[in-house]
Order: sequence, then structure tokens, then C-alpha cells
Amino acid sequence: MAHTDALSTDYVRELDRRDPLAGFRGRFVFADPDLIYMDGNSLGRLPKATAPHLDDVVQRQWGERLIHGWNEGWMALAGRVGGKIARLIGAQADEVLISDATSVNLFKLATAALQARPDRHKIVTDDLNFPSDLYVLQGVCERAGRPCELVVLPSPDGVHGPVDALAGAIDDDTALVALTHTVFKSAYRYDMDAITRLAHDAGALMLWDLSHAAGSVPVDLNGANADLAVGCTYKYLNGGPGSPAFLFVKEALQETLQNPIRGWMGQRDLFDFGLTYEPAPGLQHFLTGTPPVLSIAAIEPGVDLLLEAGMDRLRAKSVQQTEYLIHLWERLLEPVGFTLNSPRDAERRGSHVSVGHPDGWRIAQALINDMRVLPDFRKPDNIRIGVAPIYTSFEDVWQTMTRLHRIVDEGLHQRYDAGFGTAT
Amino acid sequence: MAHTDALSTDYVRELDRRDPLAGFRGRFVFADPDLIYMDGNSLGRLPKATAPHLDDVVQRQWGERLIHGWNEGWMALAGRVGGKIARLIGAQADEVLISDATSVNLFKLATAALQARPDRHKIVTDDLNFPSDLYVLQGVCERAGRPCELVVLPSPDGVHGPVDALAGAIDDDTALVALTHTVFKSAYRYDMDAITRLAHDAGALMLWDLSHAAGSVPVDLNGANADLAVGCTYKYLNGGPGSPAFLFVKEALQETLQNPIRGWMGQRDLFDFGLTYEPAPGLQHFLTGTPPVLSIAAIEPGVDLLLEAGMDRLRAKSVQQTEYLIHLWERLLEPVGFTLNSPRDAERRGSHVSVGHPDGWRIAQALINDMRVLPDFRKPDNIRIGVAPIYTSFEDVWQTMTRLHRIVDEGLHQRYDAGFGTAT
Repeated sequence: MAHTDALSTDYVRELDRRDPLAGFRGRFVFADPDLIYMDGNSLGRLPKATAPHLDDVVQRQWGERLIHGWNEGWMALAGRVGGKIARLIGAQADEVLISDATSVNLFKLATAALQARPDRHKIVTDDLNFPSDLYVLQGVCERAGRPCELVVLPSPDGVHGPVDALAGAIDDDTALVALTHTVFKSAYRYDMDAITRLAHDAGALMLWDLSHAAGSVPVDLNGANADLAVGCTYKYLNGGPGSPAFLFVKEALQETLQNPIRGWMGQRDLFDFGLTYEPAPGLQHFLTGTPPVLSIAAIEPGVDLLLEAGMDRLRAKSVQQTEYLIHLWERLLEPVGFTLNSPRDAERRGSHVSVGHPDGWRIAQALINDMRVLPDFRKPDNIRIGVAPIYTSFEDVWQTMTRLHRIVDEGLHQRYDAGFGTAT
Repeated sequence: MAHTDALSTDYVRELDRRDPLAGFRGRFVFADPDLIYMDGNSLGRLPKATAPHLDDVVQRQWGERLIHGWNEGWMALAGRVGGKIARLIGAQADEVLISDATSVNLFKLATAALQARPDRHKIVTDDLNFPSDLYVLQGVCERAGRPCELVVLPSPDGVHGPVDALAGAIDDDTALVALTHTVFKSAYRYDMDAITRLAHDAGALMLWDLSHAAGSVPVDLNGANADLAVGCTYKYLNGGPGSPAFLFVKEALQETLQNPIRGWMGQRDLFDFGLTYEPAPGLQHFLTGTPPVLSIAAIEPGVDLLLEAGMDRLRAKSVQQTEYLIHLWERLLEPVGFTLNSPRDAERRGSHVSVGHPDGWRIAQALINDMRVLPDFRKPDNIRIGVAPIYTSFEDVWQTMTRLHRIVDEGLHQRYDAGFGTAT
């Protein structure tokens, strides 16, 4: 294999033959075998086990068991599925719950963190954070009931996190440091240990958004002594469109932090129907309303597949695939004007790779419509290529890069308008 | 029929034969034909159309169309299903959205209402409200950033709303009046016009929780000029366990009220990924995170059935059924020690009826385990009998009441412990 060129079909097929996780591809639905799907970082594929599992929840649990379903599993569901996700992110089972949407959970935890640091006036974040995290934090800051400043540190290059600036900005007036661990655009991946230590050295709390990290890169929340985390389940966890999010609060903080959005599911002895709120013990009081059982149930089969594959093996394959992708970028795409908008260093990179081109939007349209490759696109020029190692093959990566090359080489994108349409 | 006794099987079967909505029963799953389900006020039955609809969403929309699903319907789903619910509650289509859980929506709207009345210091409610509504309002009040008092008016008798006390308590220091329209325990039903007028006359905003009202009683939010409403979809709307909730903001207030929990789905031009929050126009900015598509999709078939049946016909049947139930209570249950814990006046009553008995818990256990009737139970002595007119038959009502009579008459409940177990 050493003598075969990395651009050849023989080479890439040999990579797939040697892939110890190759068998997992068959556990997902590939309705259109000719479509190359490189957008698992936005919406994960459908596991084959999900539809029958959901059918059981609907037809048997709801249809037959009716209200008994609550005592026969639904009440425990948010904690049970949360406990499985905990194993993917280095947390204890009773530190993770499925609850609400990522932004609602971020609102809860950031509000609680500000309340736990009443004499401090700053939240520190960066401009690589997902924009809606900034919206939530702006709102939390404005409603803090005391002066509050949201410090948004600029990335030095739009790719890497502002690590030096963070060290300068986090001080004894900082209540909370809130960052996305693996950022949505460049896939830059923070050093969780080092940044959490920075926050703790200043007496601040540390919150990580794991939306692009959970199921894609190894995360060890307990190892880093992280305080708080949120994340979504519809990307690398394959939980389905808009599937509910998770939240993490480390055990030592669970009794002291207060959930600002109180609800029945967070009430101690909820069937007593007491008129006064009394928070349930542990993490339970961070729940609010009745959980959307069908959408939560759909999360479990995808998480089970990741647990079966193992995060270490998934990460090894992901690194091998993104390194290969970058090798192909160097040989095929850089010569025709593409930039690499993700970190070169695999240690600082998640599982997607962004490449940029002045004609990025038109190239993406040609890729989708003429080349049957589905990536996603982020303004102004960024094509994100998502590697989901549990079902992405090396040949998928190779096809994507060779087709991208062909589009620009043959000018196939020139028939598309330069204006932005609705993102796909 | 006039000469037939209301206790006879001939009589009750004739009622079912004459029921113009009887055909809708066949549109729901009855997995166990011997089970009499009187808990549709807690979890509605599964419509037959739901499983195939959800299977299409999972297998075709997610499995085949993948990320394209967002542009092919998912982005519009919260508004489209909300628009259908609007027709059941007397609102315009663009005044209702599916979003989050009921308690999260109550938090959003109550917080926004307090902010819109910055010089006022009171929220007025009653002790018939669902306890978690009180928990949310307590939390909102405590975090108002100014002095705030939650006034919880006691019901005069545990059954009827404290209408006179409300008139006295709502004053020019009241920011918000927040009540459950049809209350969960007694099914007392407020006069929405009159109470909304009281609030408006004092310059307060009016919020209605429609969880036990939507799909069960006619509601005319626009006719009453109500400002705000929330409600759940898993009771009379038959949306499935924990299905997401709805929120209503009247058109005139949509641009002025602010959502405290900002998110990407509420952002103007969301695919611009701007770093600063700019609320979307209309009601859209009251959305927060990515909507749980599977659980929202499951709401639609049940709502469609209610729209097809028509709220007027459903209400007529519901009143006829609860009147019949109370007639049977009078003849069969009052003589053996049952109280009626719901209003006698149909105009002030929703679609469930509560009956009480000192041995209520034990009787409920006998009813469930020995008599194959599934009601629900609320401490201390309250058996709630839910009439869901779209699938409940008159014979269901008759069987429930005659079996309750038999249990007490024959002492069948005495083999059960008097202690409370987990609610069913």
C-alpha cells in the first residue's frame, strides 16, 4: 500500500477494507446509495434501529400502555439516555440529563452560574462561539439584575481560538467562561483542561458547549473538572432533526446551583402537588416541563451505536480521515484556489474540515446538484465537510475532494448565480 | 327513549347510536377493547394516523431527504401546526407557535409581561392553578429585578375560581393576571371574557393556561381580547407523551414583548450568523432552539381530527356526557358517599369530572386493577374522570359509574392499602 498513490481508487478502497469500524456503515439507512453525505455535523444519518424503536414507543408504549407509560419508563427516560451520553463525554451517569433545547439549557446554566458568583460582572466568550450562544449570553447578561458585561474575544485568524487573549481576559471579576469546545465553522478544538484551569484559577465557573464535540471527539468533563456543559444530540449523536439537548452539571455544584425555569419535573415529590416550589435533589431540579418522549426515545439508538463503536476508535478513524482529507486538499484543491479554514494540527481539530474559495457558494451548488455530494455551507465562502466516522467511508472523503477539484478545474460552478440562496 | 331508565344499557346504547361523532372513535387505536380509558385529560389516545405519519417523517424526511428536510417543511413546522391549533382556540394562525414545554413558554411570556409593565409589582393568580404554573411564576417574580409579589388567591371551596377575590385583587399595581382557564382538579372553567376585562380595566396583561382547555372546550382568545396564552398538546389534543407545547401572543403585542430566552430560531436572517441578536418579526422571536421535529410532527394528526369533528360538536357532546355522568353520580354514587368535586353548572365546567370519596385512593386502585377502568387520581381523595368526546362513548361513562358504584357497594376496595402509591 505504501507504493500506491493516495489519489488512486486502489488506495482509498484499501483504507476502507482496513477500517475496523467499516461494519457500522451498514447500521445506518442509506436510502440513496449514490448520495455522498458529508453533513453529519449538521444532521446525523438515521440509524436503522431508530424507526422500529420509535414504532414500539408509539404503538405499544403510547397506544397500548397509555398513561402507564410514565411509570414504565418515560419518567426515567431523560436520565437514562442522559446517563448513556455521560459515557461519551467523561461524566458520571447522574451528571447528565436530556432536557429542552441547547439554548434553553444554556440559559438555565448561565443564569445559575451568574447567580452563584454574585459579586462578579463578566462573562467571557469568543467570536467562534455559535452565534445563538452569544444571543443567549447577551440576554442572560442583560437580565442579570446587576451590571454585567459579555466579553466576546476575537479569534486571531477566524480559525483558532483566542487562547492568549482568554488568559488575559479571565480575571477575578469573571463569573463565567462559556466556550464552544469544537467550534462550528473551523472545527477548532479547545484544550478543555487548560482553559478550565484558567477559569478556575480566577475563581470563575467554566461552561462548555459540546454540540459539535459529543460523539465526534473524546471529551473528559470530569477529567478537566469542568463545571457545566450543554450540547445537542442531532449532529454526531444521530438523534434526529431537532432532537432534545443535554445538560451537564458536575456533582459538587448540583445542590447549590438554581434552575431559573422551575417546573413540575424539577419538583421534589411532584405527585404531592404542593403549591410551593421545592427543588428535587441532585440534577433533577434542572428539568422543567414534561419531556417530549418520542423525540427523546429517538436519541437512544444512535447513542448506543457510538458506545458500541467506542470513542477512542471513532476518534482514531476521524483523525485518519480528516488528515487524509487535508492531504487531498493540499494536492487537489489548494492548487485551484481553495484555502484550508480548519486547523492543520489534528490535536486542535474536530471531525469536520472547512475549505474556502472565493466562489464557495457556487461551487457548493454544483457539488450538491451536479455531483451528488451534500456538504454544508457557511457564509461567506466556507464549505464544511463533515466526517462522521461511524458511517463516513474513506471513499466518501476521496469522492468529495476529487469532485470539488473537478468542479473548479472544469468551471462547472460558473452556471450558478453568485448570490446566496437559502442554506442547505 | 324518554320512557327508558337512564341507568339501563338500552338507554346508553341509544345515546351512542345517536352520537354524530361516534365514528371518530374508530380513528383511534383501541389496543385493548376491554379497557375503559377515562384519562384523556392526562394523556390522549393514539390516533391511528399518527404512527404512519411519524414513520414517513422518520424514514422518508429524515432517512432519505436528510438535511434537505429543513427547507422542505421542518423550518415551517412549529408555525404550521401552531396555526392549526389557533383555529381551536380562537386565534389567528400567526398568533400561535409550537415551542418548548408549557412551563418554559410560561416563563417566557410571564417574564416578558413583567418587563412590559415596569412600574407594577404584582402577579395575580389562584390556588386552583396547576402547581408548576405557580413554581414558574414564583421564579419569574423572584428574578424580576424589582420588588414583585405573587398573589395566590384561594378558591372559596376548592372547586370554583375565586372570582370575587380576583375583582378585588387586580389593581393598578398588577402587571399580570395568570390563570388556568379550565383547572386541572375540579375542571372549573373561568369566564375568559369577564376576567380578561377585569385585567384590562386595571391596565394589567392577561395570560391563560389552556392545557386542560385546548381541544376540550371552546376558547376564543381573540374574542376575549386575551393577551397571552400557553398550553400543552398531549391531553385533549392527542399529541403523544410530553409533546411540545404552544404559546400565543396577540398580534398587537408581538413586536413589543421581548423573549428572555433568545435563540437561533428567533433570530432575524438566521443564516447570516450575525453575532448580535436581532429579533425576528412577528411571533417568530419567541422561538428559541431547534424544534424537536419528531415530537412536533406527532401532534398534527390529533389536531386534524379535532378540526374535522369541530369544537362546537365536541363541546355539545362533552356537555351531554358530563351531564349524564353527574346524573349517574347523583343516582349511583352520592348514595354511597361520593362527593361531586366539579361544578354542577355545565357553563362553568370543562370536560372532566372529579368525584371524591374518603376511600378514594383504594377505590381508584380497585377500579384500575379489578374493573379495567383507567381514570386518574389526585390527592387526597379525588378521582378524575376524563371525558374526551372525540373517542369517549356514553357506554364508557356508564360503565365507569356503575363499576364505581359496585366497588363501594360490594366493598371491593377494602383489600387495597389506604396509603398512596405512585400516581397512575
